[in-house]
Amino acid sequence: MAGIFKNKDAGFYVDGILAGDMSILSRAITLVESQNPLHQKLSQKIIDGVIGHTGSSFRLGITGVPGVGKSTFIETFGKEVISQGHKLAVLAIDPSSSKSKGSILGDKTRMEGLSTLNNVYIRPSPSGGTLGGVTRATHETILLCEAAGYNFIIVETVGVGQSEITVSKITDFFLLLMLAGAGDELQGIKRGIMEMADALIITKADGVNVERAKAARAEYAHAMHLLQAPESGWNARAQVCSSVDNTGIKEVYTMLTEYKQFVINTGYFIHKRNSQQYEMLITNLDEQLKQTFYSSPMVKKRLEEIKNNSSGIPIHPFSVIQALLSEFFKSQGRY
Amino acid sequence: MAGIFKNKDAGFYVDGILAGDMSILSRAITLVESQNPLHQKLSQKIIDGVIGHTGSSFRLGITGVPGVGKSTFIETFGKEVISQGHKLAVLAIDPSSSKSKGSILGDKTRMEGLSTLNNVYIRPSPSGGTLGGVTRATHETILLCEAAGYNFIIVETVGVGQSEITVSKITDFFLLLMLAGAGDELQGIKRGIMEMADALIITKADGVNVERAKAARAEYAHAMHLLQAPESGWNARAQVCSSVDNTGIKEVYTMLTEYKQFVINTGYFIHKRNSQQYEMLITNLDEQLKQTFYSSPMVKKRLEEIKNNSSGIPIHPFSVIQALLSEFFKSQGRY
Repeated sequence: MAGIFKNKDAGFYVDGILAGDMSILSRAITLVESQNPLHQKLSQKIIDGVIGHTGSSFRLGITGVPGVGKSTFIETFGKEVISQGHKLAVLAIDPSSSKSKGSILGDKTRMEGLSTLNNVYIRPSPSGGTLGGVTRATHETILLCEAAGYNFIIVETVGVGQSEITVSKITDFFLLLMLAGAGDELQGIKRGIMEMADALIITKADGVNVERAKAARAEYAHAMHLLQAPESGWNARAQVCSSVDNTGIKEVYTMLTEYKQFVINTGYFIHKRNSQQYEMLITNLDEQLKQTFYSSPMVKKRLEEIKNNSSGIPIHPFSVIQALLSEFFKSQGRY
Repeated sequence: MAGIFKNKDAGFYVDGILAGDMSILSRAITLVESQNPLHQKLSQKIIDGVIGHTGSSFRLGITGVPGVGKSTFIETFGKEVISQGHKLAVLAIDPSSSKSKGSILGDKTRMEGLSTLNNVYIRPSPSGGTLGGVTRATHETILLCEAAGYNFIIVETVGVGQSEITVSKITDFFLLLMLAGAGDELQGIKRGIMEMADALIITKADGVNVERAKAARAEYAHAMHLLQAPESGWNARAQVCSSVDNTGIKEVYTMLTEYKQFVINTGYFIHKRNSQQYEMLITNLDEQLKQTFYSSPMVKKRLEEIKNNSSGIPIHPFSVIQALLSEFFKSQGRY
């Protein structure tokens, strides 16, 4: 962190976020995404500082293969969300960018209309790190956005297997976008992903495509009927929409409202949120336990010795592990 | 562990394994696969006891989608391996069986000819547990088999994404079986998997299929030429074979011999083995660190309280984590 943000403490960020300052929010998210231990410590204090102001948004996960029209859907649907009086944040999970260091939202031409509106905050995917790390960062980013007053959060993911599972772990509702007639295989949609979806929306239902989209909707509605019902008790739906004609968009919003009411009534909403919060705690606990261990100079030194062992004497891995853990715990007790 | 094996100590297993006793070997592998902490402790002592007698086998990973003919290939190829004077062990990794509790090698009709031969040990996939756990167990099973005198180990995996990465982590050579003309898409083969392969074998090159298989071989040879070269410096090859006609099988064995000589000469063989051994140590270290932490009665009690928190007071996750870690470390220092 450079410039005017240098040496600011957690209180500075907490105050700025609670005041809805987008620039301070962005900087705090950068801290959350950082792998620098000092940044991580600071971001943890910030999250603890705002946690009482989180949890108030509707968290929508959206997935679908490239070409399905995710950006244009979010652009059109986002405007509907804004028109309903919400403050909207759009975040992205893209584990493939972890490798290429690119970002699916980095392209400035995407969501151009939406990004210029008031009450909209768009945040590209964090680059670098493992999928687990990206998930953790996105979950924490949701909390920061909520504290800054964003009460509708869209988490976008690209369709690459594992990331759908993680997005469903940190959102309230999982929306799967599909094309009519492209075939399940081509769209990389596996049964498991359809089973996770709370709704399936056929996009590009416009022009000559309308009838095909409707036919596909009926087919998918039937297929989803055969699948295992989601844990929530909600009956997954299939709908059509056109981002270009702006048809079916309001209906998606209405469906989400119905869903929220349904799961609030059944108690599933708060149950799922609590589980997610607990899971985040365990993930962070695991991470910090490991960090405490592996950052110990004694552990580092011993592991370096083991790695460079070229004595020809075979290492007895489990004796080594026991000795290392016991030495570490003894050294911790001293403080 | 019931019956005559009850209350046997590590020394009993170590002696039995080193004497090549298949029944004791099987029981030791069951301990390695067990999630019971007592079994795990015992299995760790067994591994430490035999570790000086491990590392002497050639470890071959084989993958390919269902229908490619993995079983018949392993049956035919396994006989070639035996005829070259080896003792052969065939293990399986099947993460999908973690869910269904089934096992791809559970079917008794598979590899019938091979399983009746002397010097062959066939072990079905461990059921239950995470992919990480299955990988760890398979790696440790390799060590036990080596200690029992098996000097050629085949690790079979089904083609489901993540498991290929793990099999390539615990073997010396990664063999990808493919069908001619079935198309990459249908075979679920992604570029990443082809990049990991040290060789690609077109199966079922017999009867009317011979020409098609040869054409596919040429195509794949070209495609692999364009891919990134493996870290080993070995140029990945494409060959054809027929398990039914027993053609191309000896050639696979010859190729493996050439590979082994190549990587021994370059030093890559021992380098990869050392990395694998170190990675296994770290995996186990992570696991035992977590186990020590989460099995602490204090930690269990505090986590239960957090999970059941319905006070309405928001939990400050990172303060909770800091407090929990610090309390835990203090309690450890006391012993």
